[in-house]
Amino acid sequence: MRTVDPKRQEAQRRRILEAAVACFVRRGFHQTKTAEICAEAGMSPGNVFHYFATKDAIIEAIVEEDRRETAALFAKLKDADDVLEEMLRALDMLLEVLADPTTTRLGIEVMAEAMRNPKVGALVRRNEAEAKALLVETLERAAARGHVDATLDMENAAVWLMALVDGAFTRAALEPSFNAQEQAPMLRTMVLRFLRPAKPPPRRGQR
Amino acid sequence: MRTVDPKRQEAQRRRILEAAVACFVRRGFHQTKTAEICAEAGMSPGNVFHYFATKDAIIEAIVEEDRRETAALFAKLKDADDVLEEMLRALDMLLEVLADPTTTRLGIEVMAEAMRNPKVGALVRRNEAEAKALLVETLERAAARGHVDATLDMENAAVWLMALVDGAFTRAALEPSFNAQEQAPMLRTMVLRFLRPAKPPPRRGQR
Repeated sequence: MRTVDPKRQEAQRRRILEAAVACFVRRGFHQTKTAEICAEAGMSPGNVFHYFATKDAIIEAIVEEDRRETAALFAKLKDADDVLEEMLRALDMLLEVLADPTTTRLGIEVMAEAMRNPKVGALVRRNEAEAKALLVETLERAAARGHVDATLDMENAAVWLMALVDGAFTRAALEPSFNAQEQAPMLRTMVLRFLRPAKPPPRRGQR
Repeated sequence: MRTVDPKRQEAQRRRILEAAVACFVRRGFHQTKTAEICAEAGMSPGNVFHYFATKDAIIEAIVEEDRRETAALFAKLKDADDVLEEMLRALDMLLEVLADPTTTRLGIEVMAEAMRNPKVGALVRRNEAEAKALLVETLERAAARGHVDATLDMENAAVWLMALVDGAFTRAALEPSFNAQEQAPMLRTMVLRFLRPAKPPPRRGQR
């Protein structure tokens, strides 16, 4: 009987997921065969099957990872002193991540697959609903502290902030000249002008 | 010898394009076979071939149509008295169009295909570059008239306005509760707060 090494298990899982992402980005979810993922990972089908019984299980794991990352991001926002500033920093970080073409392509591939594949669609919609609820909660907290315009309908404001994040993926993918570092200040300007209260919140001293 | 009836020719072309869109939305560009498009259009392969020699030619025609619509939209903006207000009206119209799931799905399908298919990618990138140039020109004209904040870098502002439009497609597709009419006022608020000058332009009388 083999001893189960959790670290090695996790490393193998990651290896399969990374191989799958490389295949999906190249050919799309639908056209990627499980055999291609095994070849890309350099693992036998039996070994891959031990971790993921189906291709759908791999896709689900990728979407689940996205869910965990979103939850972690909003947990960090919860502890922030200036929630709006921390949100803007999170957007800067997002743009840095988008400098990697694999990330942008995977994001768009997931969206496209969510349109066609009802199972992936349901998972993505669940993630989106959770992310939106967390964003609304964050905006309301920021509004209560006077950092965000409290007169905004936060549900609808969240929709357009999320649209902007989606759009960052497509811009990074479609504009050959898109440069995350160059684009970051304008995204900040747009979000800040949208969210900030008409009167600035009271400050404890100047900075 | 048959007489060529341009009206009938155009009607047949449209019929093929609409059948192709239905197939692409259902199964994706890549997986759609030319035979499926013929069946959907209720036309013989020979007849379809007369209008479009390849599946790629159909995709190119769809992207080309998008190009013409964009050009027409900006031509209309050119004659507008209040360019910013006319841009906001164009966004309202866009949201109305997004109420049709076929439009949103096709938009996302085109983006996803642009990632994978170099030919479609090149066409989409050309459209995007043209749209961006027209948008920058429009913003600069609006800024010159005092309707848009002239201190903004218009190239970068255009990137994020286009991101917002892309995001409208994905939100409409991913949010089951997305309702274009409900979302329109907040999009207007976001764009208006982003673009308007710090001091409002002089008005000829009150409204």
